[in-house]
Amino acid sequence: MNGFATTLAALAINPIPMWSKQMDPRADAQDIESILSAIRSVSGDGTAGLHEPVFAGNERAYLVDCLDSGFVSSVGEYVTQFESELAKFTGASHVVAVTNGTNALHLSLVALGVKPGQEVLVPAISFVATANAVAHAGAVPHFVDVSTETWGLDPQAVRTYLSAIAVQRDGNLVNRETGRTISAIVPMHTLGHPVDMTGVIEVAQDFGLKVLEDAAESLGSYIGDIHTGLVGRLGVLSFNGNKTITTGGGGAILTHDAELAHRIKHLSTTAKSPHRFEFDHDEIGYNYRMPNINAALGVAQMEQLPGILANQRKLYRKYVQAFRTDHRVSMRGEQAGTLSNFWLQALLLDSQSQVSRNDVIEGALAQNITVRPLWKPLNTVAAHYSSPSAPTPVAQDLYERVVCLPSSVSLASK
Amino acid sequence: MNGFATTLAALAINPIPMWSKQMDPRADAQDIESILSAIRSVSGDGTAGLHEPVFAGNERAYLVDCLDSGFVSSVGEYVTQFESELAKFTGASHVVAVTNGTNALHLSLVALGVKPGQEVLVPAISFVATANAVAHAGAVPHFVDVSTETWGLDPQAVRTYLSAIAVQRDGNLVNRETGRTISAIVPMHTLGHPVDMTGVIEVAQDFGLKVLEDAAESLGSYIGDIHTGLVGRLGVLSFNGNKTITTGGGGAILTHDAELAHRIKHLSTTAKSPHRFEFDHDEIGYNYRMPNINAALGVAQMEQLPGILANQRKLYRKYVQAFRTDHRVSMRGEQAGTLSNFWLQALLLDSQSQVSRNDVIEGALAQNITVRPLWKPLNTVAAHYSSPSAPTPVAQDLYERVVCLPSSVSLASK
Repeated sequence: MNGFATTLAALAINPIPMWSKQMDPRADAQDIESILSAIRSVSGDGTAGLHEPVFAGNERAYLVDCLDSGFVSSVGEYVTQFESELAKFTGASHVVAVTNGTNALHLSLVALGVKPGQEVLVPAISFVATANAVAHAGAVPHFVDVSTETWGLDPQAVRTYLSAIAVQRDGNLVNRETGRTISAIVPMHTLGHPVDMTGVIEVAQDFGLKVLEDAAESLGSYIGDIHTGLVGRLGVLSFNGNKTITTGGGGAILTHDAELAHRIKHLSTTAKSPHRFEFDHDEIGYNYRMPNINAALGVAQMEQLPGILANQRKLYRKYVQAFRTDHRVSMRGEQAGTLSNFWLQALLLDSQSQVSRNDVIEGALAQNITVRPLWKPLNTVAAHYSSPSAPTPVAQDLYERVVCLPSSVSLASK
Repeated sequence: MNGFATTLAALAINPIPMWSKQMDPRADAQDIESILSAIRSVSGDGTAGLHEPVFAGNERAYLVDCLDSGFVSSVGEYVTQFESELAKFTGASHVVAVTNGTNALHLSLVALGVKPGQEVLVPAISFVATANAVAHAGAVPHFVDVSTETWGLDPQAVRTYLSAIAVQRDGNLVNRETGRTISAIVPMHTLGHPVDMTGVIEVAQDFGLKVLEDAAESLGSYIGDIHTGLVGRLGVLSFNGNKTITTGGGGAILTHDAELAHRIKHLSTTAKSPHRFEFDHDEIGYNYRMPNINAALGVAQMEQLPGILANQRKLYRKYVQAFRTDHRVSMRGEQAGTLSNFWLQALLLDSQSQVSRNDVIEGALAQNITVRPLWKPLNTVAAHYSSPSAPTPVAQDLYERVVCLPSSVSLASK
């Protein structure tokens, strides 16, 4: 069995095709109500959030136990246990639990050696945190396009773009326009669907870029037999309230590199030098350690992760069934050789669709069904408008055609 | 009644003198065991932490209720309620709850307009977070000495120092040595004891400095009838596990300035522009909002705050009683016109004490009694060694003579 077959066998699941159907622009005219009715047949009437957590396991018991222990802050057994459960599940040699995904990205960029004034390549399609974290490290996000196949960073487009705008100078990749060093690239697994990491790592090696894998949305997603976040040297997870599992606020850094993990943990805990009573700190650190009370929630959520992932696949199939007669839309499935956690269920409208993405969104919101578009491409977001950017036609096209559907795990069994 | 008398009457408490006794260098020889035995008579034998929280109220109920609500992350009613309880208690017009005190300081410096490359005056005696937050804002901490009276920043020493090393140039206060603008000052209420804010604000006005009040340790401490953190334009609290009340990890920003509070809340929640479904962000924001699950713990802790403060005063009196016969030491009390929360009980050794601070600390630790020194003066900490600094003889002297004693609130009733 190859790596991916092993993953499928171990998880006892079957892969899902990339698209639920071939879209057909010649298909019958669409009406907005048929689309809304299909969504409603899965999400139910009104009040369904986009991605609501379920606390059906030991959450209450572990929170109470955490209080009983007296350890609720940045030291405690639940933090250690949460890290250990994440390591077991993902196969990471080292896990560092931190306050949230944004701070995990920031800390990782610092630990990788990204310096103030450098540029970092970021996909135009991502939550703003990916670009903000670059700015928090004093660096400048430089946006690149995504792929129609993966919806994540397009390594081929990056290669062509860098060849045109950058030059090697004194061992650094330099942006000819800005004169700044481009030092790293941050691929992101959009909505939980794995990006082409093989391509990203190749282009990173060819151009001398550090790789930070933003797996904030992809706990439970695999490329072959490797969990997302572990293909590059360093990967980041998020446990925000809308994620596959939640710790209230939280994030984690995954790596096989012991030295890097040690430095990250050190930086996350104010870089305090070991001493029985003196407060010395050997570099400028952060207060980014996950509190024990949040980790207690995480340990309980991890126990339910396999069930949550199974239900997200079930929910996907319910949407496929609901949309089976509409040939102007397709549900986003899995790229060959990858497994998605289906964090957010996504509907793609045909490029010649008679109804617009906004028609669907406005219509659904009017019926209290929480849907949303992809993120506004980051190179068009006010906060980052002045940052350098490659042309991003694919990002813009996806932004105009994707609708994220209600994806709460409880909908799978409704 | 003047302001302070009002505070005392409202809280139904009496002020405590600055020192439990006049120290007498001619007093009888000390022996280390008599000091340790006095500590032990209050802290009990072994395993007493330095400052352990007590969860004797509605903590369990509110955590379970928070899970039941489904809102555990950065939106939820407990966050709003926690802010409202803090506002009621401190008298702040606006409160923004965030992930921790360090991030609260960072965000406040950004909101006050401290710019990368500027210098910020920080007392040499503080937890490293005060200086780190300055660095996180891209600025440079510049250390100044503390006062023998308050143990906090010494405004008179700052005035003399600035007159010597800085010059007004184009409306900015410029450090003549480094050429950098000195833009702000961050007084900190050491161990909960209020700093001389009147003096700090005068020197800040005279030299054109922004003031950020680090009240991380002083929830429940007052200057006259004003709660610490509200004398300047902006103040910061911390709810770390070792603080007067805890939210696991957490912090808050207090202000009477509506516009500033609005901007800080906006920055803490990724600076998202209001829209029903689009993700636009009008500046580079942060993921610093306090999660609802942590706020649920905070609301329960706030209910117990008056009792905790009363017990810390009771604990102080137990230590005074324990040390009554040793005239080479004194317990730190209250400056006239201020109220302290007595966050950490502090013993000062006479300058001619036969036993050293390290004798006491090593001796206590050997008996499993958790004591600690003041923080290593920040201008001698490796992470900040290269930052500019005024001479800090008082910081160094206090560092060599202060021992922080077990201060868990449960010790008051043992």
